[in-house]
Amino acid sequence: MSISPIYNEALAAQLDRAINNKTKPLGSLGVLEALAKQIGLIQNTRDIAINKPAILVFAADHGVVAEGISAYPQDVTWQMVENFLAGGAAINVFAAQNNCTLRVIDAGVNHDFGPRDGLTDRKLAHGTRNFAQEPAMSRDLCDTALAAGAALAAELEGNLVGFGEMGIGNTTAAAALMHKLTGIPVSQCVGAGTGLSAEGILHKQRVIEAAVARHASAAEPLDVLTAFGGLEIAMMAGAMLKAAELRKVLLIDGFIVTSALLVAARMQPAILDYCVFAHCSNENGHQQMLSALGAKSLLNLGLRLGEGTGCALALPLLHAAANFLNQMATFESAQVSEKSE
Amino acid sequence: MSISPIYNEALAAQLDRAINNKTKPLGSLGVLEALAKQIGLIQNTRDIAINKPAILVFAADHGVVAEGISAYPQDVTWQMVENFLAGGAAINVFAAQNNCTLRVIDAGVNHDFGPRDGLTDRKLAHGTRNFAQEPAMSRDLCDTALAAGAALAAELEGNLVGFGEMGIGNTTAAAALMHKLTGIPVSQCVGAGTGLSAEGILHKQRVIEAAVARHASAAEPLDVLTAFGGLEIAMMAGAMLKAAELRKVLLIDGFIVTSALLVAARMQPAILDYCVFAHCSNENGHQQMLSALGAKSLLNLGLRLGEGTGCALALPLLHAAANFLNQMATFESAQVSEKSE
Repeated sequence: MSISPIYNEALAAQLDRAINNKTKPLGSLGVLEALAKQIGLIQNTRDIAINKPAILVFAADHGVVAEGISAYPQDVTWQMVENFLAGGAAINVFAAQNNCTLRVIDAGVNHDFGPRDGLTDRKLAHGTRNFAQEPAMSRDLCDTALAAGAALAAELEGNLVGFGEMGIGNTTAAAALMHKLTGIPVSQCVGAGTGLSAEGILHKQRVIEAAVARHASAAEPLDVLTAFGGLEIAMMAGAMLKAAELRKVLLIDGFIVTSALLVAARMQPAILDYCVFAHCSNENGHQQMLSALGAKSLLNLGLRLGEGTGCALALPLLHAAANFLNQMATFESAQVSEKSE
Repeated sequence: MSISPIYNEALAAQLDRAINNKTKPLGSLGVLEALAKQIGLIQNTRDIAINKPAILVFAADHGVVAEGISAYPQDVTWQMVENFLAGGAAINVFAAQNNCTLRVIDAGVNHDFGPRDGLTDRKLAHGTRNFAQEPAMSRDLCDTALAAGAALAAELEGNLVGFGEMGIGNTTAAAALMHKLTGIPVSQCVGAGTGLSAEGILHKQRVIEAAVARHASAAEPLDVLTAFGGLEIAMMAGAMLKAAELRKVLLIDGFIVTSALLVAARMQPAILDYCVFAHCSNENGHQQMLSALGAKSLLNLGLRLGEGTGCALALPLLHAAANFLNQMATFESAQVSEKSE
C-alpha cells in the first residue's frame, strides 16, 4: 500500500482564502485554522466534513509482564475489556458524550471471552511472548496483525478514525519501540505506566535495556515491532497505514498509540500528513516521542489513561475546525468592515 | 454581596474517594479530575451536574479608539453584534455545536440597534469616553453597569456561565486594567489585539502609559475600572460577582474577560474558587494575567478572537469531568482488580 502526501498548492491557497475571509481577525482561531486546512488537504476538498467518526480500541496482553513491569496484574486487560463492553470505562463515557462510535478489538488478550456482542474478535494469540527472553512474536504473526488492522480500517464507514488501546504491560513495549526507533535513551522512554514507583520504573528500564541488548540485531521497523511487539500495537499500525491510504483523518492518542504510529511512520513517512495528535500524555516520554515525529498535540490535560480517551476528548475541536469553515459568515456576507490598514 | 470560599473538607474527601474508585489508574484523568472536584465543591454536592450552560457576550464601544489603537474601525463592534444576531460569528458556531445558550448583551455599543430579537438591550451609553483625555465613565455609570451585570446573572437558569465580549478597543482598556491591578509594566500588558503592527503596538503602549499617568490617583479596583472602563468589562465584572455568589461555575475566556475577573477578584478574592479558565489566549499579556491570578487554563490553542469562543470550545471538557464522575464504573462495580502494591 502507498500513502500520498497531502500537499496541493492550489487547494491550500483556496483553503487559506476561505479561512481568512471568515469574520474574525486573521489567524485568530489559531490551531483550529491549521486543523481546518489539514482536514481539507486530507479530504482533498474545500468542503470539509467529519462523517461517522470512530475510535478503535485494540486490546492485547504482553508476555513481558512476567518481569514485574506493571503496577496492575495482567487480568486487568480482560477485565477492562469487559468494562468497555459493559459501557463503564472512561472511553465509553467520552465517546458517547461526543457521538463517536466505539469499536473494541481483541487483538490478543490472554482470556477467552467467547462470542460477545460488541467485541470484535481478531485474537491472534493469548498475548505476546516475553520479550525479555525471546522475540515477542514471529514475523508471520506480526504480518498477520498488520493485515488484520488494515482490514479493520478498510471496513470503516466514516472518514475519521481515532486509536486507543488496552494492554497491561504495553508502556514497556512502547518504550522499547521508542528507544529503538528514535535512539532516545531508554531512561527517557520509560515512565510510570499505570502507576509504578520510582523503584519500579528503574526496574522496568533495566528490563528494557537488557531486552534491547538481546534483540540488538532488530533495526528495521518491522523487525523492531516483531521483537518487542504488542499485538495491539501491530494491529494499530496496520490500521493506521490503511486508514491513511484511504485518506481518512487519523486521530492519535497517547504514548502507546503514538508508538504504533512511530512504527508506521518509519515505514511510510507520508502517514504523518494524515495525523492529528489529540493530546500530550503525562506518561514520561510522550512529549519527546511527539517531538521525534515533529508533532504538536491539541490538548495537554495531564491524561495518562489510554483507551483512546484523549482522542474522544479532542474530537470536539476537530468538529469545531470543520464547523467554523463551513458555517461562519465571511466579511462580505456579514457586511463587516475589514482591517483599516 | 458576598462570595463564600468553596472549601469543605468532608466533601473534598468524599469527592476524592469517588474519583479514585473509578476504573482508571489513580490520577490518570489529570486536569479533569481536579475539575470534577472543583465543580463538586462549587455545587456543594457529590452529584455534580452541568445544567443549561450559557455564554453571555457583552458588547460595548470604547472612546479610546480615537487614539488610533485598533486595527479595525469602531463600526466593527456593531457589525459584529449584527453578525452574532444573524448566527454567523465563530461564537455562534461553537456555542451551537456544544449545545450552549448564547446571550448577546448591548452594554454600550455606539449604534442604535432598535428593538431586536436576540439582543438584550442594557445600553448605558454610546460607548465610554476617551480615557486618554478623561475617565472612561463616571463612578455612577460604573456602579450601574455592575448592577446591570449582576441582574443578568441572577436571571440565569443554568448553573454554568461563560463570559465573552466584543468591543473594538477593548484590549487597550484591558491592558490598562491589567497594569494598574497587577503592577506588571504596560509593555508586557499590551498586545496586537485584532492585529496591530509592531509600530501600532508601541503606539498603543504609549497611549496607555500617558493615560495611566493622567489617572494616577485611581488605585482601588472600582476607581481603576471607572478610569479605564469598558462598559462591557464592568457589566461582566458585576455578572461574575453575582454568579459566584449564586455558586455557579464561571467559565473565563481570554484577555478581556480575564481583565474583568481581575477587577472582581481584587474586590472579592473568593470568586477565583468558582472560575474555570477556558484557555490561554495568544494575546500578549494573557499568560501573565492568568499567572497573576494563580490560574491555569484548560486549552492552549493560540486563539485570540474573544466573543467567548474559548469558553464554548472548553465546555466539552467540563461535561467530560461531570460525566466521568457520574457515569464511569468503579473497580468494585466492574470487578476490575486493583493495583498490585
